[in-house]
Amino acid sequence: MTTLNVAVLGATGAVGQRFVQLLDGHPWFKVTALTGSKRTVGGTYGEGCRWVLPTEMPEWARYLPVVETKAGLDAAIVFSALPTEQAKEVEPEFARAGQHVFSNASPHRMWADVPLLIPEVNAAHTRLVPVQREKRGWGGSIVTNCNCTATGFTVSLKPLLDTFGVRRVFAVSLQAASGAGYPGVPSLDLIDNVIPYIGGEESKLHAEPRKMLGILDGEKIELAALTISAHTNRVAVIDGHLVCASVELETAASPEEVVAAMESFRASDIVRDLPSSPAKVIEVRAESDRPQPRRDRNAGNGMTTVVGRVRADEIFHVKYAVTSHNTIKGAAGGSIHNAELLVAEGLV
Amino acid sequence: MTTLNVAVLGATGAVGQRFVQLLDGHPWFKVTALTGSKRTVGGTYGEGCRWVLPTEMPEWARYLPVVETKAGLDAAIVFSALPTEQAKEVEPEFARAGQHVFSNASPHRMWADVPLLIPEVNAAHTRLVPVQREKRGWGGSIVTNCNCTATGFTVSLKPLLDTFGVRRVFAVSLQAASGAGYPGVPSLDLIDNVIPYIGGEESKLHAEPRKMLGILDGEKIELAALTISAHTNRVAVIDGHLVCASVELETAASPEEVVAAMESFRASDIVRDLPSSPAKVIEVRAESDRPQPRRDRNAGNGMTTVVGRVRADEIFHVKYAVTSHNTIKGAAGGSIHNAELLVAEGLV
Amino acid sequence: MTTLNVAVLGATGAVGQRFVQLLDGHPWFKVTALTGSKRTVGGTYGEGCRWVLPTEMPEWARYLPVVETKAGLDAAIVFSALPTEQAKEVEPEFARAGQHVFSNASPHRMWADVPLLIPEVNAAHTRLVPVQREKRGWGGSIVTNCNCTATGFTVSLKPLLDTFGVRRVFAVSLQAASGAGYPGVPSLDLIDNVIPYIGGEESKLHAEPRKMLGILDGEKIELAALTISAHTNRVAVIDGHLVCASVELETAASPEEVVAAMESFRASDIVRDLPSSPAKVIEVRAESDRPQPRRDRNAGNGMTTVVGRVRADEIFHVKYAVTSHNTIKGAAGGSIHNAELLVAEGLV
Amino acid sequence: MTTLNVAVLGATGAVGQRFVQLLDGHPWFKVTALTGSKRTVGGTYGEGCRWVLPTEMPEWARYLPVVETKAGLDAAIVFSALPTEQAKEVEPEFARAGQHVFSNASPHRMWADVPLLIPEVNAAHTRLVPVQREKRGWGGSIVTNCNCTATGFTVSLKPLLDTFGVRRVFAVSLQAASGAGYPGVPSLDLIDNVIPYIGGEESKLHAEPRKMLGILDGEKIELAALTISAHTNRVAVIDGHLVCASVELETAASPEEVVAAMESFRASDIVRDLPSSPAKVIEVRAESDRPQPRRDRNAGNGMTTVVGRVRADEIFHVKYAVTSHNTIKGAAGGSIHNAELLVAEGLV
Repeated sequence: MTTLNVAVLGATGAVGQRFVQLLDGHPWFKVTALTGSKRTVGGTYGEGCRWVLPTEMPEWARYLPVVETKAGLDAAIVFSALPTEQAKEVEPEFARAGQHVFSNASPHRMWADVPLLIPEVNAAHTRLVPVQREKRGWGGSIVTNCNCTATGFTVSLKPLLDTFGVRRVFAVSLQAASGAGYPGVPSLDLIDNVIPYIGGEESKLHAEPRKMLGILDGEKIELAALTISAHTNRVAVIDGHLVCASVELETAASPEEVVAAMESFRASDIVRDLPSSPAKVIEVRAESDRPQPRRDRNAGNGMTTVVGRVRADEIFHVKYAVTSHNTIKGAAGGSIHNAELLVAEGLV
Repeated sequence: MTTLNVAVLGATGAVGQRFVQLLDGHPWFKVTALTGSKRTVGGTYGEGCRWVLPTEMPEWARYLPVVETKAGLDAAIVFSALPTEQAKEVEPEFARAGQHVFSNASPHRMWADVPLLIPEVNAAHTRLVPVQREKRGWGGSIVTNCNCTATGFTVSLKPLLDTFGVRRVFAVSLQAASGAGYPGVPSLDLIDNVIPYIGGEESKLHAEPRKMLGILDGEKIELAALTISAHTNRVAVIDGHLVCASVELETAASPEEVVAAMESFRASDIVRDLPSSPAKVIEVRAESDRPQPRRDRNAGNGMTTVVGRVRADEIFHVKYAVTSHNTIKGAAGGSIHNAELLVAEGLV
Repeated sequence: MTTLNVAVLGATGAVGQRFVQLLDGHPWFKVTALTGSKRTVGGTYGEGCRWVLPTEMPEWARYLPVVETKAGLDAAIVFSALPTEQAKEVEPEFARAGQHVFSNASPHRMWADVPLLIPEVNAAHTRLVPVQREKRGWGGSIVTNCNCTATGFTVSLKPLLDTFGVRRVFAVSLQAASGAGYPGVPSLDLIDNVIPYIGGEESKLHAEPRKMLGILDGEKIELAALTISAHTNRVAVIDGHLVCASVELETAASPEEVVAAMESFRASDIVRDLPSSPAKVIEVRAESDRPQPRRDRNAGNGMTTVVGRVRADEIFHVKYAVTSHNTIKGAAGGSIHNAELLVAEGLV
Repeated sequence: MTTLNVAVLGATGAVGQRFVQLLDGHPWFKVTALTGSKRTVGGTYGEGCRWVLPTEMPEWARYLPVVETKAGLDAAIVFSALPTEQAKEVEPEFARAGQHVFSNASPHRMWADVPLLIPEVNAAHTRLVPVQREKRGWGGSIVTNCNCTATGFTVSLKPLLDTFGVRRVFAVSLQAASGAGYPGVPSLDLIDNVIPYIGGEESKLHAEPRKMLGILDGEKIELAALTISAHTNRVAVIDGHLVCASVELETAASPEEVVAAMESFRASDIVRDLPSSPAKVIEVRAESDRPQPRRDRNAGNGMTTVVGRVRADEIFHVKYAVTSHNTIKGAAGGSIHNAELLVAEGLV
């Protein structure tokens, strides 16, 4: 396979940096353009980016010029870590100009013809891409990944939906600070504290899983017929979102049956062979006190969803805790994974 | 009112220290005895106690001798901060010897004739005290307070139960480190992390609120007919437990009606005049990001339950977050409050 | 004493909020004006201020209008919590207009005729106030308090200087997040981390103590002839700065003699009677592991300097750790204390 | 090179786990025995070890039996993560029995004939090994690594000593929780707090660098003629110790010259080729706010010492901050590195 040129939009922010970090040494993709805000355009990435990740900025990135965020970059694939408002405006321009946008931003997630994609969950939704291109007359396309808290949570629901059906779910999140970007949450708000509110987050948790778990019927996704009620909280954790979930199934199942469904869950063949696919989609831990964000977020290089404490629920059928790395699986890593899938399917 | 002599059992531990702190300057109670483990007996409290609270150890406590934990102390009232196993064994001995035990320990909480008491919630249950004394032939009695996470949560349910009825509740806790005592949770487990498990905690959250919200029918408490499903988590917070609750009511109610019920909730007259009673039983905050453990735990000197984010639930009727100080209202302060109630009622 | 009207400039920020909190119920001062940025002017303080302190906003403050920061407010005393640039510009205008400015900002601290004041350390420097007024033709005056890290550190040096003389000091700070204001330090920088740098802080620690420990000779302060070398670090603490200091004395002294000098240190009579003066200026703790920011910052309502671990130094004479509350003694509380002193001396 | 069998003593503790983690896939060493306390002997390592590291326990370790800590194991090399008292007693027994002990424990560090070794600093001290064996009549030997805080600090001093000479050093540490092992420091002591004391630590920081920086003269190490004064603090960090150092040189040097000396510092040829040797012994960062424990501890896989903020000192000549990974370079990784050196030199 020849290497594809890719660009990262909004490359100097926290998620943009994750894209740069994860694309370092990628077997299929070569970063040829990094875009940034006015303040940084004109200088190099090394000059303009206040790198906050614990590994070093890759050498090749240090000397790349930061360019303006506008369509026409030398890249077939464009990863977007843009802020909401800017994403809303410019992502369609890139798609119109023939570029394939893989976006971490929220504005286009719920568009009927835009796949909201987790390869292990709804690879079939990529069939929306030609629909989207034709309908909109675009040379390129937009594919989005979901909200970072919805990611692992939705992965954990998929085998339950497939095996038993899912009716209703209570979900309470304990979310890491990195989910708010940098500078994000002030330390005066998180040291010795919890913030029981994250703006706009709960409605995403109510809606996005239903789309991803929905079925593509012709050119339209039939939303999954399940109801979610979420409470979202910010806690003093760097990376790794934890969700406590109580699930009502269509068909009653024991905790052991639920564990078996999760452990036997496999991605499709085409997904399994993608460079970013982890060995295990879901890892179910047997210890009573796992998953924990710090100890489990890096499972499968941050791409595995870790579940634990699967037990009977006093009201619904089953309850458990699930952790997923919010800036890898839940953001940059997820977008790259999505791009890999479209490349493998010949859609890019 | 003349001052009553009181003792603190297990006074050198974290909860024991809170008793000493909160009893400093108490208008009704004078501490005359402090008990400790073998290691500390014989020395003074100042010598034997590794004081971990941010205020100073009271001067009078510093020079009190630490004595053995056995019945016969010069005190009508005995506050117990003993560990579970020891509480199980010695609290009945104190009661038999004519002392009124107010216990923070769990072993006797679910005994049919022992009040599990929060003055604002179930003051009527104190009528079990004479039943208990007669049945067991004790000169004294045992009254317990509930699990620290159940405290604020149960207070918040009381006006809902009274006004609308409560059927089912999902409750997810984010609990402070002090709930595990000292040394308690290693910092290697809590820095940049969440522990999604607290041994024995969930079953207490399922059972204890039902007893406290139950109705005393003659000599027996009819458990409240509601079902609770809990997930409990430990987070990097010093003091203050937060619970995210989703509630199914008997009679549907809007968030506004729920707020009104909480805000108009009053303790009975006799309770309102107790020294430890806060001005407000429940404070409902209007800000979108409250309650927060660090900013709300000291409301009403740590005795007020703070509720916020009252909103419609997608599955049940209403959801909200509730915070309560786990070592004041949820432990030592709660026990002292209970003792005050029994004194006011002439039961001590 | 009749009550004096006071204003707080920059009242909506973190230090401004401390002023409002500490002035609540002050026996001498009544807040009559609160100023804020353009965004907040016109509304009430309750509307414009995102209150971040753990106690409640005082009721009287909630309904005060936020006004523009310009001279001519109805207040004899003006407390300034303004940002550096604005303080530089407007504080002299207030002084010119006849108002007595007590400032927490840095721009005028090193002006030769402006007292940089800690009442217990250099009350005599208030004699600069009439000098300043005459020289500048001002009806009012400017008095500043020092950098929050310099505060407790300078207090701890004062008895050593008086008793033994001080030549050279190494000082390494571990500073709380609140020192950077709100929003201040991102939690992504402080969770599981230390930032070994605080912009502009070390030069203040080198210079300010020399001025405060200097002697007023006629109309000029003779800087204390001591050299300080500082390293400043930000750590995951909410309030309370800790400084590790190694001190070379003029005359050798044992740790016991140093402790005795610190413990016997008293403020002057006029200072001792001020409302904000703590019972002890310096508290020396005997435990091996104190002072600690969380456990000692509130000593003397946040106005006492707490010292511990006084021991022989391998290079200089003595070393110790010192903690002081950075937003009380080191900011708003210190400014109020300064104003009290000038009122008591009849200079306001 | 054939693979050597190695054992880990005290393998279930925090440092023992690091040994197991770092020996996974080691090109020269194969773990054949793991020892533990009575509680764990007889079961497998997977059963007896409460694994606290964020990577998974290696599969091969999971099924190894935990055996008693006594000489005679099938291993030429023995890594010791034993607690002080046990190390004191049993390490000499292993050495007597012909095994080469590489110890992380403190009791034998200051023995005149025991190398206290950091390969990049004092590889020449390995010549003590044959001296030790002959003098004591041992078939094996003991080689120790130094205190985890002394490690990076001593590495940073080495090029200064070689190039300019070093007379006196002030050193203030901000140490990670993992330095105290597991369970170690209670979270109630570290959240929103600093503990300005670590038992026994300062005397190690005063003595150990002098031995490591000393010169082997025949069979005796001449201690380096420098004086160190240390303050040690525990902060809310998982891994990575930070030291703020102010250094008096023999020959004055500018910060630029100091940086040049550090950057040009190389290990000897034999050391450079060891499997655990990092590409850079010392990395000097140019940013004003580095090194930071979380962002720099993993430099060179946790084996590189990271220095920053090199600047002129107001009292001595130069000051800087230095970070090193305390459980890799400063503990298990350091011991493995030492063993590699002795193997390469043919001393094992």
